[in-house]
Amino acid sequence: MSLFEKHKITISEAVKALHDRTFFAHYPEQPAPAIYGETADADAQVKFKSSLGKKFEELKQTNVQGWLGEEESPYLQELLNIQYPVSPIDMLIDNAKKAFHVWRKVPVNDRAGILVETLEQVKKRFFEIAYATMHTTGQGYMMAFQASGPHAADRALEAIAAGYEELHRFPSKTIWDKPMGKFNIKLNKEWRAVPKGIAAVIGCSTFPTWNSVTGIYGSLITGNAVIVKPHPGAILPIAIVVAEIQNVLAENNLDPNICQLAVDTIDKPITKQLAEHPAVKVIDFTGNAVFGSYLESLPTKTVFTEKTGVNSVILDSVEDVDKVAANLAFSVALYSGQMCTAPQNFYIPAGGIKTSTGIVSFDEFSQKFIENINGIVDNPKAGPFVLGAVQNKKTCERVTDAENLSGKVWLKSRTFIHPMFKNARVATPIVVEVDASQKDVFSKELFGPIVLLIKTKDTDQSISLAQEMALNHGAISCGAYTTDGSIKEKIADEMSLAATPVSFNLTGGIYVNQHAAFSDFHVTGGNPAGNASFTNPEYVTKRFTWVGHREPVQA
Amino acid sequence: MSLFEKHKITISEAVKALHDRTFFAHYPEQPAPAIYGETADADAQVKFKSSLGKKFEELKQTNVQGWLGEEESPYLQELLNIQYPVSPIDMLIDNAKKAFHVWRKVPVNDRAGILVETLEQVKKRFFEIAYATMHTTGQGYMMAFQASGPHAADRALEAIAAGYEELHRFPSKTIWDKPMGKFNIKLNKEWRAVPKGIAAVIGCSTFPTWNSVTGIYGSLITGNAVIVKPHPGAILPIAIVVAEIQNVLAENNLDPNICQLAVDTIDKPITKQLAEHPAVKVIDFTGNAVFGSYLESLPTKTVFTEKTGVNSVILDSVEDVDKVAANLAFSVALYSGQMCTAPQNFYIPAGGIKTSTGIVSFDEFSQKFIENINGIVDNPKAGPFVLGAVQNKKTCERVTDAENLSGKVWLKSRTFIHPMFKNARVATPIVVEVDASQKDVFSKELFGPIVLLIKTKDTDQSISLAQEMALNHGAISCGAYTTDGSIKEKIADEMSLAATPVSFNLTGGIYVNQHAAFSDFHVTGGNPAGNASFTNPEYVTKRFTWVGHREPVQA
Repeated sequence: MSLFEKHKITISEAVKALHDRTFFAHYPEQPAPAIYGETADADAQVKFKSSLGKKFEELKQTNVQGWLGEEESPYLQELLNIQYPVSPIDMLIDNAKKAFHVWRKVPVNDRAGILVETLEQVKKRFFEIAYATMHTTGQGYMMAFQASGPHAADRALEAIAAGYEELHRFPSKTIWDKPMGKFNIKLNKEWRAVPKGIAAVIGCSTFPTWNSVTGIYGSLITGNAVIVKPHPGAILPIAIVVAEIQNVLAENNLDPNICQLAVDTIDKPITKQLAEHPAVKVIDFTGNAVFGSYLESLPTKTVFTEKTGVNSVILDSVEDVDKVAANLAFSVALYSGQMCTAPQNFYIPAGGIKTSTGIVSFDEFSQKFIENINGIVDNPKAGPFVLGAVQNKKTCERVTDAENLSGKVWLKSRTFIHPMFKNARVATPIVVEVDASQKDVFSKELFGPIVLLIKTKDTDQSISLAQEMALNHGAISCGAYTTDGSIKEKIADEMSLAATPVSFNLTGGIYVNQHAAFSDFHVTGGNPAGNASFTNPEYVTKRFTWVGHREPVQA
Repeated sequence: MSLFEKHKITISEAVKALHDRTFFAHYPEQPAPAIYGETADADAQVKFKSSLGKKFEELKQTNVQGWLGEEESPYLQELLNIQYPVSPIDMLIDNAKKAFHVWRKVPVNDRAGILVETLEQVKKRFFEIAYATMHTTGQGYMMAFQASGPHAADRALEAIAAGYEELHRFPSKTIWDKPMGKFNIKLNKEWRAVPKGIAAVIGCSTFPTWNSVTGIYGSLITGNAVIVKPHPGAILPIAIVVAEIQNVLAENNLDPNICQLAVDTIDKPITKQLAEHPAVKVIDFTGNAVFGSYLESLPTKTVFTEKTGVNSVILDSVEDVDKVAANLAFSVALYSGQMCTAPQNFYIPAGGIKTSTGIVSFDEFSQKFIENINGIVDNPKAGPFVLGAVQNKKTCERVTDAENLSGKVWLKSRTFIHPMFKNARVATPIVVEVDASQKDVFSKELFGPIVLLIKTKDTDQSISLAQEMALNHGAISCGAYTTDGSIKEKIADEMSLAATPVSFNLTGGIYVNQHAAFSDFHVTGGNPAGNASFTNPEYVTKRFTWVGHREPVQA
């Protein structure tokens, strides 16, 4: 049975799910022994530990010229000392060029089958990837498992499905038969979906697989050769994925260089050289706005970006203010605000928030909110695991600096002793009140656990500011609380015009930070937070070109 | 009955045709009295003549501040003296902003119905548009009727259909129901296709409706407000279209400023100011490579271009060399080489072309080719009507200059007395032989009736050069003649990699210049000839953004 036959049902379910946009997950998100095996977690811990201080020798790519690696665990604040193979960019490109001409000729269905098979192999290493993610990004265990494992695999499957559908969108051949009156002109026509060539996928330090696999699989399903350039601080999780892709390619007698890993260091980055190489036609990037905009400006390249955003919460009126404060406190505590979807700017009317039991004043809400944050932080059984560790030292500096923002500090950021990792780099949320007039303070992304409570004249001003921030500085998420239908529609409409999805009235176990594969488009592509969207049709169609040939039918 | 109900079948047939890519045309291409009415042609002639020297007062757009127009008939070499309303760009933008918020809220189906209705109204003016096109572009009558009338209307319908399909691609709402073990999380989700805002469509002087309507209708169906900025030399044909669009909008109680006309002059162009206006989010452009690339480089704009290309013909082996020479002679004579699809570089092996009756030498083919061109030119009943007139004086200068290209001139360009228009600006094809080593001569578009016969070492070199030209300078069409299956596949593959469609072995009444709506993608978007394609899914999806909102289902 071919790999396509093996995975055909999965692929068609995934295509259907993309259209239905109801709940769908192919990879179970619970790290449960019953699903993944009794010893899966323990085995992975052992394997992860044994990989430290060694060369990562799983890759099959050729022309290796040296080894490097400088990952550091935010939990241990120690180097992992794992070394990855290095090839000069020209060699990676030469490898990719050869591999491209092999891969582009593999029929779409076979490519789809092979790629789903790679995910099935990656699935066996979800726990190992989880530990690799924890010790590079600082994510808590549960997030590291889910985001880097099943959720990333589902996002990858989504890209495969979207590509599979688009590649089958037009007939590979047909007869064009035009009546001309006394005779017909008949042409045999055929259409080829021609991949663009070599694609580079540039990863970030906080979500090393989740934010990279869509680009990797999006480019691979459409027939491109891929060079994966992770952030130097978070290589291992995606290196494992690339190794599994290369394994499956090799097992199918295909060139493993179809997907290569390229590594660099903070001091000697190779990303510009890679991106500007004339042979690189497609670029996927997750990271800062300045570099993302530079990539977008490169002529003749097809560039997909997720950059930074200023996410808002608009508080107008609520049913139960305590549930709201609890939900939002969790959203800002989760992974210490290091998610691209984490809310930053909370717009609260000076006159307070309407509730079913009367007005809750600005100060009352602020007090409830910080009490809820403290409730999470001070719960030793939950707090450290929700907060995780801080990936980058600079985030801690930013948090410290935030105390000097010109506004009342409702809650200072603290450190604490992590129950499992005494050296963990941690920072709890800081909450600062600013006035709506202090635009200079809140008109930028303050990456990390920094929350601004912005006192507005009224909800109209809140909406207007949230829209302005999204239009000018980008936004990936927006939370809004209102019990008034007309205000709700106004928020929905105004934020739509700023290409920002709104989560209304979330309470309980669902958070504005979460974007589910097969349902939520992640980043819309319509504001400065990024030009791409996981996974809309453009996300795959821009990776190839439809070319039609024709010839008269032989009489 | 709503306009959507009225045109529902047309829309669904068009969507189906886009997928089937077999022959489909909604608007009959024959200017036959039986189809369009016994007096349609004569009435249109009268109406066209009566419009000369007058203000074009059909437009309903507001804030008109003056009148201008400088169109000249290539057939009469006289000014048409038609004046069009002028508004400052800021007023056009203000009008468009207001109109946008009206139009974007019109449901998709209603937009589709209204837009098809505008085409039905335009249909009544096909003959008038034909005369307007002749006397601005220099096209012959038949081409002017077909290209600016039914073929343009079919391209517009194609854009409506593509947009209609994409806008219905994802559900407007659904319930997302995630099992969490002991309970489910249920969210109401909804998706909105949010138009980008104001779109500018910048026309060219040779195909004033055909090359503009796809952008106009592509932006309108997706909910954008459109400002149409024709080439100052060819306003009337598209002004009639805009007037009919405005009429139908007004009849449906919608703001006619949803689609406005903006005019300028060669000396005082407004295109940069319009394109760079921050409110303009989408730009469609047909024209020269330098300006097109400048537009593509504008940050934060969605830009669709059709620029210039260097189209090739590869001659390897043929069944019947006379039929081939006849077919290609017609292709270069048609509208005096002023089609973006006209072939320019003919690659012929030094060893000649293989035929079923032996080798035809380079010189023998060249001789046959120019004899066929002369046959068309010297046929007074056909030649003048195939050749048409030359839109731009500079094209005539370019043709004259081509005599000084360093190579044997096989055929000089001539003028002739047009049987209907004694002052017509005409130029017959010039044919020059150059060597494959003279890349500086043939590595650029020589717009107009200029043909280069390039002597190559062999067919492999021919393919390699054709591919190189397409990759580096763009190509919109490629003709290839070979009776060898493996060479055919090589050409198909190599030209695919240069994103160039190949027409194989065309003889008889079908020409490499022709791209049919609903079947042939016009321009692939994959080489420097342009970044857009009529009409692939991207052509419409990039004009709007999917934004999803969500809220917990009330218990």
